[in-house]
Amino acid sequence: MSYEFFKDLAIIIIAAKCFGLLARKLNAPQVVGEIIAGLIIGPNVLGVVDSSKFLVQMAEIGVIMIMFMAGMETDIKDLVKTGPKALLIACVGVLVPLVGGFLLYSCFFGFAATGTDEFYRAVFIGVIMTATSVSITVSTLREMGRLKGLVGTTILSAAVIDDIIGILVLTFVIGFKNPEVRPIHVLLNTGLFFVFCIIIGFVAYLVFKLMDRRWPHRQRLPIYGLALCFALSYCAEKYFGIADITGAYVAGLILCNIKSSDYIVRKLDINSYMLFGPIFFASIGLKTEIKGITPAILVFAVAFVIVALITKIIGCGLMAKVCGFKGKDSLRIGVGMMTRGEVALIVGQKGLAVGLMDSVYFAAVIFLIITSSVVTPIFLKILYHKEKEESDTDCSKEVLPQAAH
Amino acid sequence: MSYEFFKDLAIIIIAAKCFGLLARKLNAPQVVGEIIAGLIIGPNVLGVVDSSKFLVQMAEIGVIMIMFMAGMETDIKDLVKTGPKALLIACVGVLVPLVGGFLLYSCFFGFAATGTDEFYRAVFIGVIMTATSVSITVSTLREMGRLKGLVGTTILSAAVIDDIIGILVLTFVIGFKNPEVRPIHVLLNTGLFFVFCIIIGFVAYLVFKLMDRRWPHRQRLPIYGLALCFALSYCAEKYFGIADITGAYVAGLILCNIKSSDYIVRKLDINSYMLFGPIFFASIGLKTEIKGITPAILVFAVAFVIVALITKIIGCGLMAKVCGFKGKDSLRIGVGMMTRGEVALIVGQKGLAVGLMDSVYFAAVIFLIITSSVVTPIFLKILYHKEKEESDTDCSKEVLPQAAH
Repeated sequence: MSYEFFKDLAIIIIAAKCFGLLARKLNAPQVVGEIIAGLIIGPNVLGVVDSSKFLVQMAEIGVIMIMFMAGMETDIKDLVKTGPKALLIACVGVLVPLVGGFLLYSCFFGFAATGTDEFYRAVFIGVIMTATSVSITVSTLREMGRLKGLVGTTILSAAVIDDIIGILVLTFVIGFKNPEVRPIHVLLNTGLFFVFCIIIGFVAYLVFKLMDRRWPHRQRLPIYGLALCFALSYCAEKYFGIADITGAYVAGLILCNIKSSDYIVRKLDINSYMLFGPIFFASIGLKTEIKGITPAILVFAVAFVIVALITKIIGCGLMAKVCGFKGKDSLRIGVGMMTRGEVALIVGQKGLAVGLMDSVYFAAVIFLIITSSVVTPIFLKILYHKEKEESDTDCSKEVLPQAAH
Repeated sequence: MSYEFFKDLAIIIIAAKCFGLLARKLNAPQVVGEIIAGLIIGPNVLGVVDSSKFLVQMAEIGVIMIMFMAGMETDIKDLVKTGPKALLIACVGVLVPLVGGFLLYSCFFGFAATGTDEFYRAVFIGVIMTATSVSITVSTLREMGRLKGLVGTTILSAAVIDDIIGILVLTFVIGFKNPEVRPIHVLLNTGLFFVFCIIIGFVAYLVFKLMDRRWPHRQRLPIYGLALCFALSYCAEKYFGIADITGAYVAGLILCNIKSSDYIVRKLDINSYMLFGPIFFASIGLKTEIKGITPAILVFAVAFVIVALITKIIGCGLMAKVCGFKGKDSLRIGVGMMTRGEVALIVGQKGLAVGLMDSVYFAAVIFLIITSSVVTPIFLKILYHKEKEESDTDCSKEVLPQAAH
């Protein structure tokens, strides 16, 4: 019988909440405090909690819940309206960092001839930069009550599309080195996943609508909803090679139009903020290892982070502007898209495995995740704070009653 | 990145809820349905979910939460009033099964001379029967709204005392075989644990009372409360060798008198019924392995279960009657105390480790856990159903608003 994990949970919960409240006092979002709490209690500073398999799984449930709630809070009409724009924003938001990463590596280590190993290494640095992990942005926007509305929905749909494009690009690049992975299969799988989602979604929607009518506001609705979320997350990963968070978001979309969706979100939100959310954000800080970094790697890492953040803002922000968003909203979309998380980590680990990246550069990836996770919420808060009642007519629907913090 | 556990979670949640609702339709408590759901999806029938380390840890959190909530719903005045009676009930409730188990083994395999190995084996069968695991009784009483009141509180305090006596007895018996474990140390540790609880409890109570006054009904209260629960569970196991569920119950007792305790219970209850509770009950079914049982073992196992259940009812019930409870209430206390769970499992595993028990009899222990877990809630429901408005004046305070199922 192991009981050590109780200690970890107690420390994480207390530290995350304390630092979260401190962050809020300093006008930063709570999630920043929670990430920093993870850094402080983790192996780099105090070393009282180590990342364990159990914590990784709890954190995974945390990010799944966040994406599921984001799906349920999406307005389908907004999604359809923002769909084409989001696709364009996502594409340019992938392209610019890809090129930026390639140029960065080439500037540091010299331009290599097309097709050489060194060339693919340069491309791979760009690939790592492509995929947005929107969970932190989502949490921040929820905390500020800005998740609904055109800007929030655009960021969310662009991030989901961007995830898929990122995985496609990764598969293509690896496909050149490894003949076993067929890019055409990946495209096919992605297509099949959406067909699967439409079928499952239609059936699940009817079942939940029926349950909603017979048993409105009953425990079984959030329970079965959570089960649907886990099931779709699993199916996405297992059968289609799509990120589990995309499955969870789709599960949320399926339920966003039933009458009890607000009720389900409220129940899930309690699960999320009590335990799974703090563990997810703290575990980002926990997983970071700072030792073993040389000055040369540090310089590269800093440049890597700056390029990754700026190219995303430029790519997404400019395209948003082209698509007709106002200047401020374009910037919000660009900033909202710049967070990187577990997808960048997965891409990096894949690169290590197939020999497209040296492990010394892995610190740069983690550095990027931490920096973007801390900087994005702060920037978003500033961007939304400055002109509170201006250009925000699309946010007027944000009246979901959220529990006091 | 593992994602298989999402499948397990989805299946457990759906199966537990469906069977729970079915059980309720058949007028049995939901927890019985959830345990049976675990049996059916587990390796014995369908084999779609295996017990994993992750599920064991989630189940552990589930039982901790149940005991924590039970502590918070305890009326301290009732506890003090029932304390001496509970002590007597627990003592006799340990003694009778201990003797019963010894006689059962001796009847099957012959009476051995005092001090021989065979003698201690007979004693050990009695030891396994001693410890009540009250979590299932607690859940059933909560579900029926009968947890508060004299009978509920008596069962709870008797079970907590009984846990400690059970562990003391185990340590004494093992102490005779193994000179490393000193019974006096165990007694000392138990005493120190209660001193520790009083000190920590006093400080924590003041801190929470202060927080309660400054920030009533805020998220931070249930969050810090949960952290206290994890911390005390950990300390109980780690530093005093006391069961973690006892630590969780004490943590609940500490907070039962602050104003927001109902609010904290409501928030925790959502966490519990959405995820951790179903996993805990389903995992009892999951862990059972039926294969490898011979007819001879089966006969012994059946006798073992019958003796274990009846001796507990007789021991606790008679003592309750002697202490002045009415006939019906005495029976309720006896039945409420007859559930065995993880403590019996731990005692059994300890016996295997030190050679006081053969592994073939382990099936009997698991059989006892399953049977008592299924039978107790049904009996309790019948006992409370029969004379609804009779002899229940002590239950009049049970008005905690519970969410609809």
